[in-house]
Amino acid sequence: MTDPRLSDLLSAIEPLDVTAMSDARERQAQLTKPAGALGVLEDASVRLSGVQGTCPPVAMTRPVVAVFAGDHGVHAQGVTPWPQEVTASMIENFRAGGAAVNVLARQAGADVYVVPGHCGAGLLAGASVAQRLVDEGYDCLLTGDMGIANTTPSAALVAAFTGSAPGRVTGRGTGVDDPTLARKIEVISSALLERPPGDDPVDTLASVGGFEHAGIAGFVLGAAARRTPVILDGVIAGSAALVAQALAPTAVDYCFAGHRSVEPGHVVALERLGLRPLVDLDLRLGEGTGAVLSFPIVEAAGAVLREMATFDSAGVARKDADA
Amino acid sequence: MTDPRLSDLLSAIEPLDVTAMSDARERQAQLTKPAGALGVLEDASVRLSGVQGTCPPVAMTRPVVAVFAGDHGVHAQGVTPWPQEVTASMIENFRAGGAAVNVLARQAGADVYVVPGHCGAGLLAGASVAQRLVDEGYDCLLTGDMGIANTTPSAALVAAFTGSAPGRVTGRGTGVDDPTLARKIEVISSALLERPPGDDPVDTLASVGGFEHAGIAGFVLGAAARRTPVILDGVIAGSAALVAQALAPTAVDYCFAGHRSVEPGHVVALERLGLRPLVDLDLRLGEGTGAVLSFPIVEAAGAVLREMATFDSAGVARKDADA
Repeated sequence: MTDPRLSDLLSAIEPLDVTAMSDARERQAQLTKPAGALGVLEDASVRLSGVQGTCPPVAMTRPVVAVFAGDHGVHAQGVTPWPQEVTASMIENFRAGGAAVNVLARQAGADVYVVPGHCGAGLLAGASVAQRLVDEGYDCLLTGDMGIANTTPSAALVAAFTGSAPGRVTGRGTGVDDPTLARKIEVISSALLERPPGDDPVDTLASVGGFEHAGIAGFVLGAAARRTPVILDGVIAGSAALVAQALAPTAVDYCFAGHRSVEPGHVVALERLGLRPLVDLDLRLGEGTGAVLSFPIVEAAGAVLREMATFDSAGVARKDADA
Repeated sequence: MTDPRLSDLLSAIEPLDVTAMSDARERQAQLTKPAGALGVLEDASVRLSGVQGTCPPVAMTRPVVAVFAGDHGVHAQGVTPWPQEVTASMIENFRAGGAAVNVLARQAGADVYVVPGHCGAGLLAGASVAQRLVDEGYDCLLTGDMGIANTTPSAALVAAFTGSAPGRVTGRGTGVDDPTLARKIEVISSALLERPPGDDPVDTLASVGGFEHAGIAGFVLGAAARRTPVILDGVIAGSAALVAQALAPTAVDYCFAGHRSVEPGHVVALERLGLRPLVDLDLRLGEGTGAVLSFPIVEAAGAVLREMATFDSAGVARKDADA
């Protein structure tokens, strides 16, 4: 039986604003450029208008990346050469401002908010994090993650929600060797055989997901319920978003795919989510680094609608066929 | 016979600083992340160190996009439905701050500097623009362009410098229809038959290139001579960089490929230049839009080297094999 608080959360998620999206498409056609010449940036501007429910979109001046951290029991099965205590010491590194996500967040003008495993565990807790950040005035929510071994449960979730073979969606994570990769695939295959995915996404999440996945899936749902854009990071976020999608397909409309990581499961997840990544730089770090790198692109998409001149306002001639 | 001023310019271009690059690679290995996990960002940080001759690289706080504008005689041959006067009215739009490149430059904190055709024509004039901007304190030079019909000479240059068939490197530019695309290919094929490319890159440039191409090729050479990073925009810049490469292969080491456009000739040019694009968003506008969008990524690469904690400084354990 579904938790009534989860039902309330899901029913609070409304479709994107189609009027704002239609206004955005119409405005794109008036701007001083050939139709479609700004490519994916135009699509992003339409989505952002639909998320915010207004065209042009309001400038996003307070982005925040929420880094969901967690430990993983599967670590004991030898799926990574990194000691588990690295998760805790990286949390200290985030707090001290020395991790990659801190550096990139400062560049993008974003704050970093660390969510330790015991706080962010569970869909409802993740949704609460999103809602609290929106209440505090943040206007764009980015996902981050930290958890030694967490590409293993991510691959398991992707396999479970897309029906892909574990061998197709499991990657090298931090860069594991061939025997460790084979062990990861074996561990995931066994887990899915022991606890085969059923009809309830929450059960599947509980069976093979980690703290981060539950937290991030809830975070996406909570942001969508508050009509706030989400920028997803890599394979951990992508696999968590599959859970959110299974619970509320509309929630994915509020998401931008920050980047495409080198993890093979991420590509499969993005295909299922129907999201095109904004940045493709062979990143495989997590933490939210890919999401933060793409924030300026999403914000630039909105600025185009707000600030560009139109053919009429600038007195620029149109092409012959349109004149 | 080569102009002695051009010879002086070319001889002023030195190789990247290998010590700074080696320091950058060594530092990347100490930072709190798995080796290589920041992908292309790590490569960019090494290149930037080599360009500036120091590790970590100095923060780039004054980027500028130089928009080289030009008209094209080939316009009379029906290669585009856009009236030629659009080039001039877009220059006014740039000056008024209403074009796409203005909007994106404001987002990235970059200035826009318009170089009209009669000012930027010629390799030496383009080099002078770069050198003047460096003298004024700009620390990262981005290329932009505006010229109705300029994807046609760009495709001709790519064909000339790579030996590719015109049909392979000619695209739809602003979005031309099938008959116009066929006409573009025919015009380029005829031009290359009438004036076949020889051994002198300057002759080839003069035969099939435009004002923008000469200006941007010189701009790249001038920036390299001043050890200043260049971010190239799309196919116009890519084809111009092929001229610079033919004159001084080392000049390309000072360049970053801002993005990959949808023009097929751009992909061919990037392959020959050996540059991986930082952004891939189906842009086909020019003006410098792709270069400006990628500036924050290049700057972020430098910030990683400056600001990230090391395993030792943050007290983070390494993976078992390295412990």
